[in-house]
Amino acid sequence: MEIHSSQDNHQTRGGFKRLTPVHEAHEILLRNVSTELGEEKVPVNEGLYRILAEDIVSAVDIPPFNRAAMDGFAVRAEDTYGASPSAPIILRSLGDLSIAEVPRFKVGKNESVSLVTGARLPDGADSVVMVEYTKQLGDGTVEISTSTRPGENVSHLGEDVSKGTIILRKATRILPQDIGMLCGLGIREITVKSKLRVAVASTGNELSENPVPAGMIADVNRPMLIAAVQDLGCEPIDLGIVRDDYEAIRTRLIAALKSADIVLVTAGTSVGPGDIVPKVIDSLGPPGMLVHGVAMRPSMPTGLGVANGKAIISLPGYPVSAYIAFKEFVPKLIAHLLGSKTLPPHTIKARLARRITGVLGSRTYVRVKVHGEQSGLIADPIRTSGAGILSSLVRANGFIIVLENMEGYEEGELVDVELFRPWEIAGVE
Amino acid sequence: MEIHSSQDNHQTRGGFKRLTPVHEAHEILLRNVSTELGEEKVPVNEGLYRILAEDIVSAVDIPPFNRAAMDGFAVRAEDTYGASPSAPIILRSLGDLSIAEVPRFKVGKNESVSLVTGARLPDGADSVVMVEYTKQLGDGTVEISTSTRPGENVSHLGEDVSKGTIILRKATRILPQDIGMLCGLGIREITVKSKLRVAVASTGNELSENPVPAGMIADVNRPMLIAAVQDLGCEPIDLGIVRDDYEAIRTRLIAALKSADIVLVTAGTSVGPGDIVPKVIDSLGPPGMLVHGVAMRPSMPTGLGVANGKAIISLPGYPVSAYIAFKEFVPKLIAHLLGSKTLPPHTIKARLARRITGVLGSRTYVRVKVHGEQSGLIADPIRTSGAGILSSLVRANGFIIVLENMEGYEEGELVDVELFRPWEIAGVE
Repeated sequence: MEIHSSQDNHQTRGGFKRLTPVHEAHEILLRNVSTELGEEKVPVNEGLYRILAEDIVSAVDIPPFNRAAMDGFAVRAEDTYGASPSAPIILRSLGDLSIAEVPRFKVGKNESVSLVTGARLPDGADSVVMVEYTKQLGDGTVEISTSTRPGENVSHLGEDVSKGTIILRKATRILPQDIGMLCGLGIREITVKSKLRVAVASTGNELSENPVPAGMIADVNRPMLIAAVQDLGCEPIDLGIVRDDYEAIRTRLIAALKSADIVLVTAGTSVGPGDIVPKVIDSLGPPGMLVHGVAMRPSMPTGLGVANGKAIISLPGYPVSAYIAFKEFVPKLIAHLLGSKTLPPHTIKARLARRITGVLGSRTYVRVKVHGEQSGLIADPIRTSGAGILSSLVRANGFIIVLENMEGYEEGELVDVELFRPWEIAGVE
Repeated sequence: MEIHSSQDNHQTRGGFKRLTPVHEAHEILLRNVSTELGEEKVPVNEGLYRILAEDIVSAVDIPPFNRAAMDGFAVRAEDTYGASPSAPIILRSLGDLSIAEVPRFKVGKNESVSLVTGARLPDGADSVVMVEYTKQLGDGTVEISTSTRPGENVSHLGEDVSKGTIILRKATRILPQDIGMLCGLGIREITVKSKLRVAVASTGNELSENPVPAGMIADVNRPMLIAAVQDLGCEPIDLGIVRDDYEAIRTRLIAALKSADIVLVTAGTSVGPGDIVPKVIDSLGPPGMLVHGVAMRPSMPTGLGVANGKAIISLPGYPVSAYIAFKEFVPKLIAHLLGSKTLPPHTIKARLARRITGVLGSRTYVRVKVHGEQSGLIADPIRTSGAGILSSLVRANGFIIVLENMEGYEEGELVDVELFRPWEIAGVE
């Protein structure tokens, strides 16, 4: 019985001598890759989602001058002291200022100028009386029925952005409002990190493109991972389907390492005689395979290697395993290479519809379907018979991660779900 | 003092007779737009993020045959009953099956076939003994040291997807795993909703493209909103900058309605004499302006109109207001037009660093910066002096929404934050 139980342990590890914990696998990979990546200039309006390779320092003040924050009359606040509806004061009106006009006059004592929101405040004026508190009397004067304080209803030079400020930091992922800000600063071109190129190969003699001949099956992983690479803002390189042959795989990967920053290969990553991908990766130059076998369920046979400073990730052949290993390792690797902060996952809280269990010592990824109202979300674990069931990923909208030191979660427990698809809203078709 | 206080109320409403509550504004808009939109066929591998216009019914079974889920020997389970390491049984070996091979023989009583994961199970066999429990004896027989149950280590025909199942429903937003599934089903082309075209115009005599002449300012809203339209997966149409002139704006919008599904116009949306956009929208045909003045802060002057069944949204000129009104109204409108379920926002819980107040009767959007560890996030409200401060949106990474019936939230309270940028992780550069 000794033998049997040792076989069992060996099986639990999928034939691996040792499984590397997930956090350790990340550290080993990131420590060994080179982060010397290219940069390029792009027009600001093509900058969405790109990663800034420079700090953006404002060369201007926004607003570029003091301007009216309301329609009304620019005045000297001291001239309005004591004004009220029952005791209005009268000021001389110097005329109208339109929005793009540079004022040709100063506002002196007991003088005022009519202007619209955004118009430049003339010298001498320090505040704006809102139009609702004014009445033009038709004789070149205006009645003011409220008092102002200096600065009231004025947007001041530089109050949004002052010259010399760092307004966007290196490694920022550019969002629409950042593009607005860059335009506001008069910047037309920015330096960003080059898009990462991620090559994707499937291995397997049984794989075919559609239409699929009898006896073969359609390649699922490569089109899925190419889309997943695009989803992360990277440029995919399609390496096609490669036969289960050491030299064929090696030739394809050597070519890929010339143009790609990261290489992904699916299948052939276990410890059987047909699992040649790890051996190929080990042959590509130091340090070669760094991690083979990760303490995670599914995706245990995942391998992580580096050659020429570039990551080569050997993903399991089952689509669910390939997807989960991709989600675990690739986004963090990309964030690291781009110098950006790790993007935290979007998690929500939901109540478990039934008990789930993990595997002690491994990180377990349970596919769930979340539904219900925001105030009372339910996470339904998807019943599957293993990593071969791709439909589980199509029906799921999130994962629950059971950490290495947890046995699982009980029915009714409130758990964190990493959502990858919006939840279904009860009653909405 | 009566007059004064009535003026105050009028000001609180920004000169509007009545402010429409946010939820009512949504309903009015969605009730009036036409949802008859186009469809198109695209290759599956160009389908990422597109919205399915058809249910996808599987024409095949996945797996297409019973196959081995492990490397090992295909057997009849009944032949292995009672086998154990101390009492193995011996079966005849019929040879090896490779992965894409169609078996030419049946497995009969006390027979077995060596095969790899994914290989087709020969007729007669009903289970697979894992290779770890087998030993080839070299004389055409194999020793089996464990028993199997029928179905053990077998992936069954149709267990992932069975023929005739609806596997992806109409209105699904296609993700990478869906592309994998579609390829697995042998589908090469799908029918999706045509991309929505969203036209964006800025109005204002003071606006200029970069480089900006003296006295004018850069147009911030249009490049920001064009990127925001792309961010929602739609196709932007750039209508450029339009002078503050009734006929100029009208001509531009009439042209836009011919090619766009939604039209966005910024500025000129208040109730002053220069605010001509709502009048133009009202002239474009029934029903015209439906909502003018929304009970929200900022973005109160937002206008919602419809002509020819197409939504025309009049956004305030201040970039922060334009952005917040866009975020409030446009994603839900797009989801409605595409027939997809409302996408729930990504909210996280964070503790307020200081008290915030709303405006009773209005929905208030407070910009915050969230930082800290996931276990203890802090939301710092950004101190601003109004909607003119675009840098507040660049520094913020989320909103807290104070609903109409709330006075606000206290310092230390746990609140929901709608994140639009990842939070900063303490200690990570």
